[in-house]
Amino acid sequence: MQTPWEYRYANRTQRMGSSVIRELLKLTEQPDIISFGGGLPAPEVFPIKQFQEACNYVLEHDGPQSLQYSTTEGYRPLREMIARHTGRYSVTITPDNILITSGSQQALDFLGRVFINQGDHIVVESPTYLGALQAWNAYGAQYISVPSDENGMVTSELEKALRIGPKFIYVLPNFQNPSGTTLSLERRKQLVELADRYGVPIVEDDPYGQLRFEGEHLPSLVSLDSQYRGDDGCYTGNVIYLSTFSKLLAPGIRLAWVVAPEQVIRKLVQAKQAADLNTAAFNQMVAFEVAKGGFLDEHVKFIIKVYKERRDVMIETMEELFPHEVRWTKPQGGMFLWGILPEWMDAADVLKIAIERKVAFVPGASFHPNGGGNNTMRINFSYSNPDKIREGVTRLGTLLKELVAKHK
Amino acid sequence: MQTPWEYRYANRTQRMGSSVIRELLKLTEQPDIISFGGGLPAPEVFPIKQFQEACNYVLEHDGPQSLQYSTTEGYRPLREMIARHTGRYSVTITPDNILITSGSQQALDFLGRVFINQGDHIVVESPTYLGALQAWNAYGAQYISVPSDENGMVTSELEKALRIGPKFIYVLPNFQNPSGTTLSLERRKQLVELADRYGVPIVEDDPYGQLRFEGEHLPSLVSLDSQYRGDDGCYTGNVIYLSTFSKLLAPGIRLAWVVAPEQVIRKLVQAKQAADLNTAAFNQMVAFEVAKGGFLDEHVKFIIKVYKERRDVMIETMEELFPHEVRWTKPQGGMFLWGILPEWMDAADVLKIAIERKVAFVPGASFHPNGGGNNTMRINFSYSNPDKIREGVTRLGTLLKELVAKHK
Repeated sequence: MQTPWEYRYANRTQRMGSSVIRELLKLTEQPDIISFGGGLPAPEVFPIKQFQEACNYVLEHDGPQSLQYSTTEGYRPLREMIARHTGRYSVTITPDNILITSGSQQALDFLGRVFINQGDHIVVESPTYLGALQAWNAYGAQYISVPSDENGMVTSELEKALRIGPKFIYVLPNFQNPSGTTLSLERRKQLVELADRYGVPIVEDDPYGQLRFEGEHLPSLVSLDSQYRGDDGCYTGNVIYLSTFSKLLAPGIRLAWVVAPEQVIRKLVQAKQAADLNTAAFNQMVAFEVAKGGFLDEHVKFIIKVYKERRDVMIETMEELFPHEVRWTKPQGGMFLWGILPEWMDAADVLKIAIERKVAFVPGASFHPNGGGNNTMRINFSYSNPDKIREGVTRLGTLLKELVAKHK
Repeated sequence: MQTPWEYRYANRTQRMGSSVIRELLKLTEQPDIISFGGGLPAPEVFPIKQFQEACNYVLEHDGPQSLQYSTTEGYRPLREMIARHTGRYSVTITPDNILITSGSQQALDFLGRVFINQGDHIVVESPTYLGALQAWNAYGAQYISVPSDENGMVTSELEKALRIGPKFIYVLPNFQNPSGTTLSLERRKQLVELADRYGVPIVEDDPYGQLRFEGEHLPSLVSLDSQYRGDDGCYTGNVIYLSTFSKLLAPGIRLAWVVAPEQVIRKLVQAKQAADLNTAAFNQMVAFEVAKGGFLDEHVKFIIKVYKERRDVMIETMEELFPHEVRWTKPQGGMFLWGILPEWMDAADVLKIAIERKVAFVPGASFHPNGGGNNTMRINFSYSNPDKIREGVTRLGTLLKELVAKHK
């Protein structure tokens, strides 16, 4: 039956597409499919016992406060903890530079709400994070794609993009989603220097930075920016930095944060007031209890151990069973690697057969806002256990070999 | 220090104001102020023990699922429970008619996102809920105010508003925020009939409906609509219905829901994907555990007992101590009553002195999107205990008497 609602959608509603990732998440719910498609943390690493203790502690000691409305900025002790933690990386941040959001997706949405006018250009890596595109499509963003290679965004290609006059640059420097690559130190410096020279600010999205399996941590753009400017070490603000508890503790509590200049935080707070008043006080207080006292540092080591093994099993099996026409990245951390099929192969076609054989991944085209990438695929290694990874990669390898043989 | 961000705000950012309610919430944090300003539930009614049991149960039995990403629509058993509950009121609803949101504020935001184009007109009661205005201002809404009296929106004034061609009608039929009034049965029928005749849909916002202290529950607009249409009892969808767990369980878990036609739910789901992916699975599973098995019905009786006493103490003290030039509504439920000062008195001026005397309320002007209401005030009776209510009303009454005496 028709209702009057259907004739009343706003114009922007046409720009809101249904998510490929979300449709794929539905596949992961079928228990017989081995899914490398989602972006889910391993359920085995969730600190369930610590959550239980923290829930009991918070409800016993601060029950009424934890269940009440709370301030839009977020729970102050949690913001203080994040400020201290960010301070490790040589930038001076106060709690007033921090907004707690309901996941990083909400931070991306608020950045769109506060900064993007219809038709504004955003510089992105190609490929880039699909969730950011979804958030900003709703505000009418257009994208300038800068190519990337195994060292991340090719910064020598950035300057011509900056001359177009973009609103900001969006980059995931560590173990990028979807490609798994890390922006090299030299390119980080170049990116920050160019952004500063052209007066174009940067959004640095860093959900995985702490999940480094090997090698040295590279300085964040936000810290390089303040060094480059040579000021007194305070937060200068050419870079807005995003991170999240989703990959460090658990995504089911929906907690992330934005680091930004105070003026920008105030605007984001206004956006949050209109959008959902505040992030659940209970969740913030529980996360604070779980994370405090050094637990998080220890826990991150555990996550790294689990994910490193899974990455290794995946890459070993790929080396053993994938046809040599297929290439892939070897991420030093994070949750994803990136497969590059022969030019003539379409990853979406491969997926259709793969699903029949009970294995799934995300075709790479949707991570390219301006087209291309039809022969690429995002493969998640964090969610499935090593046995499943071996089995799933075997199924994929068999399929890819068949396709290559058929093509010859 | 200036940053490039400040020159890059989107046009809509200018429409995003800071919230009067939020600034006032800050006042309630000063422990020596008796605040009738916020819209906070009584912390004494939060079922802390039940939350503790539910957290332990969920983490022990479904830990990994509760801490993982989850579906955008919401936790299915919770949606099934809400569907059954809504079914009590004679409308057939399925879980596919329901979206779980992070508080009703998020539902209001999504309605703006999905339906409101710049310049669209929305019919509202005058006064109306400030949070809805804040949500929709960001999308460039304009408002057509229909006056209200002690029986809610004056529906005889509605027809000329509908001829302007509004996008939808927004109404809070039960114990309205801010006025505390309830839309009479006759007017409910008239509203639904007129909306149907003009093809203009209705958003029914019902956070307080279950908190009725006395008298009979009146049928919701959503159920009247399906009766009026005389169809097979299924959800016809001229009315989108909003409600929340914030006033039944606790606002600190940020859980509310939308009842809408399936096609509309699908659009709202797309909005939610872009906005924050999903509402915290943990919170939904905990709320389900707390609410199931009839606890909610028992708990609502307890809340009613507490709030009724507070309303009675407030009204008795006002009758005793307020000057007879001041009038107020006598709500049959909910959390607010509405004070009407003499025409010559400005509630904002009164508030300034009141704060010096350590008592606060919300001046009514901000609830009137098209001006007026300078001599009105919203007074919350749910948050403070009876002693504080008596003391706070005494302070207010003394002040108002002084102002009246000075004016004579």
